Amino acid sequence: MRPTDQPLRLTLIAPDGRMGQAIAAAVAVDNRFKIDQDRGDVIVDFSAPDALASSLETATRASTPILIGTTGLDDFASRRITEASRSVAVLRASNTSLGVALLEELVERAARVLGTEWDIEVLEMHHRLKRDAPSGTALSLGEAAARGRAEPLRREESRSGRRLERQEGAIGFAALRGGTVVGDHDVIFAGPEERVILSHRAENRMIFARGALAAARFLAGQPPGLYTMRDVVEAL
Amino acid sequence: MRPTDQPLRLTLIAPDGRMGQAIAAAVAVDNRFKIDQDRGDVIVDFSAPDALASSLETATRASTPILIGTTGLDDFASRRITEASRSVAVLRASNTSLGVALLEELVERAARVLGTEWDIEVLEMHHRLKRDAPSGTALSLGEAAARGRAEPLRREESRSGRRLERQEGAIGFAALRGGTVVGDHDVIFAGPEERVILSHRAENRMIFARGALAAARFLAGQPPGLYTMRDVVEAL
Amino acid sequence: MRPTDQPLRLTLIAPDGRMGQAIAAAVAVDNRFKIDQDRGDVIVDFSAPDALASSLETATRASTPILIGTTGLDDFASRRITEASRSVAVLRASNTSLGVALLEELVERAARVLGTEWDIEVLEMHHRLKRDAPSGTALSLGEAAARGRAEPLRREESRSGRRLERQEGAIGFAALRGGTVVGDHDVIFAGPEERVILSHRAENRMIFARGALAAARFLAGQPPGLYTMRDVVEAL
Amino acid sequence: MRPTDQPLRLTLIAPDGRMGQAIAAAVAVDNRFKIDQDRGDVIVDFSAPDALASSLETATRASTPILIGTTGLDDFASRRITEASRSVAVLRASNTSLGVALLEELVERAARVLGTEWDIEVLEMHHRLKRDAPSGTALSLGEAAARGRAEPLRREESRSGRRLERQEGAIGFAALRGGTVVGDHDVIFAGPEERVILSHRAENRMIFARGALAAARFLAGQPPGLYTMRDVVEAL
Repeated sequence: MRPTDQPLRLTLIAPDGRMGQAIAAAVAVDNRFKIDQDRGDVIVDFSAPDALASSLETATRASTPILIGTTGLDDFASRRITEASRSVAVLRASNTSLGVALLEELVERAARVLGTEWDIEVLEMHHRLKRDAPSGTALSLGEAAARGRAEPLRREESRSGRRLERQEGAIGFAALRGGTVVGDHDVIFAGPEERVILSHRAENRMIFARGALAAARFLAGQPPGLYTMRDVVEAL
Repeated sequence: MRPTDQPLRLTLIAPDGRMGQAIAAAVAVDNRFKIDQDRGDVIVDFSAPDALASSLETATRASTPILIGTTGLDDFASRRITEASRSVAVLRASNTSLGVALLEELVERAARVLGTEWDIEVLEMHHRLKRDAPSGTALSLGEAAARGRAEPLRREESRSGRRLERQEGAIGFAALRGGTVVGDHDVIFAGPEERVILSHRAENRMIFARGALAAARFLAGQPPGLYTMRDVVEAL
Repeated sequence: MRPTDQPLRLTLIAPDGRMGQAIAAAVAVDNRFKIDQDRGDVIVDFSAPDALASSLETATRASTPILIGTTGLDDFASRRITEASRSVAVLRASNTSLGVALLEELVERAARVLGTEWDIEVLEMHHRLKRDAPSGTALSLGEAAARGRAEPLRREESRSGRRLERQEGAIGFAALRGGTVVGDHDVIFAGPEERVILSHRAENRMIFARGALAAARFLAGQPPGLYTMRDVVEAL
Repeated sequence: MRPTDQPLRLTLIAPDGRMGQAIAAAVAVDNRFKIDQDRGDVIVDFSAPDALASSLETATRASTPILIGTTGLDDFASRRITEASRSVAVLRASNTSLGVALLEELVERAARVLGTEWDIEVLEMHHRLKRDAPSGTALSLGEAAARGRAEPLRREESRSGRRLERQEGAIGFAALRGGTVVGDHDVIFAGPEERVILSHRAENRMIFARGALAAARFLAGQPPGLYTMRDVVEAL
């Protein structure tokens, strides 16, 4: 077992990518971690879908836990991840912010308590250049709400027109785009004459790198299995 | 001329409608006004499009100013309104809240100053039963912003998908629906690393009735012409 | 045991008070309840501190559960409540909104997970006539946050000056007053470059009456003990 | 006169200070400007109060416009600034964000229109290390509101207790502190059953440097006089 006074060694897949660089920057100011591209205690993969197979093979061969932050993975990739998680600890996350992971938990709980008498809307705002909508995080929050209600997620988007009817139990999504906004998310529970609103504000993309470090620290020493940021939050 | 110590007499078209009743309730607690269905100083019409012709005829025949809050009017109706405004004072408004009228003015000014480097998004939330989106007020706010930029309004709505591109100079609209929300509107100016947000919160529908009274008071004694709530605000 | 198809009978202490009237109005439109001033299944007391002794005696003598919404109670009153809770079910609440009760639970959870690296601020806005600050609900939310951190509540208020230092682990309170605002509460967790914000918006005071009915329904049939709105939420 | 195709030369007082460095960084990516410590077209002083006398003397001797962003100046310093403005263009600003300058204008206008029936509250949030409260920007916004009402600013702060009374016409201030928040400001106009909220969100301190560049560009070629960021905004 890794002595606790040694820094945790991370092997970065795609160290020159945007997140790879951000994680290296976060490691540079946190002496509990260091980069070791040869013998990492944890593999960290924020790369592209086609690099996944190779990363998983490296992880399973070396019995090294792996954090997967790559997005846009298809069902085939998801099955490979599940398979790998039988022999090593795998954590998959579309958003590694601790605040967002906590928010998902709170949203699930609120949706369970409040029931379908309270309508749920998910609102997000991102910078003008973001090309997908709703954001992956907004969808994760919507799925957390649906889990809380013990229902499949039924999305209601793109409201425009004159004869709309909000469907009972649907979860609405709206996307704002503009300026340089890093990422705002609001989950609105609108009940009879009161609202509960659960929000997250990201001020800087470095929060995703710092959250990735927290996830890596959680992963080190975990038994094989498939983990999420929720597990990281629960263990805090 | 009406002595200033006499209450202003209002003739309500459709006094049993939702807004008719609300205005009567507002008059009941404000002794500067009274209802007089025969000889009003101002005619107040929050009814249905097919009642408009008759209301305008009454106004022009009696040379009485008229406030028109009816929505869903077509181009033909708009032309009749313009024609009537040559002989009497006519004020047309889709939202008679003073706060919203002020907000429109501020939005126009902000859009003029900030230019197209700042993206503009209009967000609104209303109760679960509202059937049109964006709200008429959201559209008016978007038009005020476009006027400020001296451009026609180009709407961008219903963002959903993977390859979206925010168009330069477009104004985005998003609609949230849920619970019993009376009406929230936000106009977001998102620039490089800063945002200006201009918002209105309606707590109760009575604000529309009170704003209608302020509009009626403004109209009394005005020369013929076509007025808006902006004129009411400017005169405060 | 009360047959489930019979309405729950409530005995109102101070039925002519503001909350007494609101609860009567809520009962009038909800056929699961009725008012019975002689033989209630649950006693509901939103009155004044000096009426408490009598209410508690009535409850214990008749072995009837009691909901206490009276605020401004002193330590002596608190001890009487605890004593009564040995023989009947007693629920004490300073705010009977279900949304606020849920929010308290979420705030406690968030404070536990996030730790003291995240600063906590509690913000509330109420109408211009509210005379106490912070609101009782804001204090309850602050106490929930302190419980989550397993620390006593250390309040930081009234920031004004030039040499302020935010104390590590303190919880800040700020009060806005204006207009007719029914009640807005925000608990802000401000961490390194991200924020989690948990909010409640009350649109109408009737939510407190409806929440009181939910609390009364919960209380009916409970064994002796001291309960809170949290228990009502947990049981939903 | 400076040919329009030449970059504007800025002389920085205290180039190694926090704002001096930020302005240099903004200049480095904007080829309409360059740093020239000997023969600037505009002098830019974000330094300390005791450097002001020397900066003003340099400006008046060389007949060069000067931007003063230094805060914490006393009345004596203010008089020196006024005196210097008789011979050169002087712009003094406690916050050089364009968004904030616009907000001040909008706040003044809103306060003028809405009158004292609408209560005004100024809310700000900054990072945990900020030591003064309310922020200088919050005070400027409050002063803009008071100007709009044509009244002196009467501040109401530090609400805490049981027998508070909001004073007619007072402007409330509240300060939140936590995390790494760059600067949020909200001016809330709370009227009868509606609110107008005018807000600014700073995402990054670089906005102050970019605003300083816009101010310097405005100043170049202005006749002697005392200017503010409002003049910069008006000229956009």
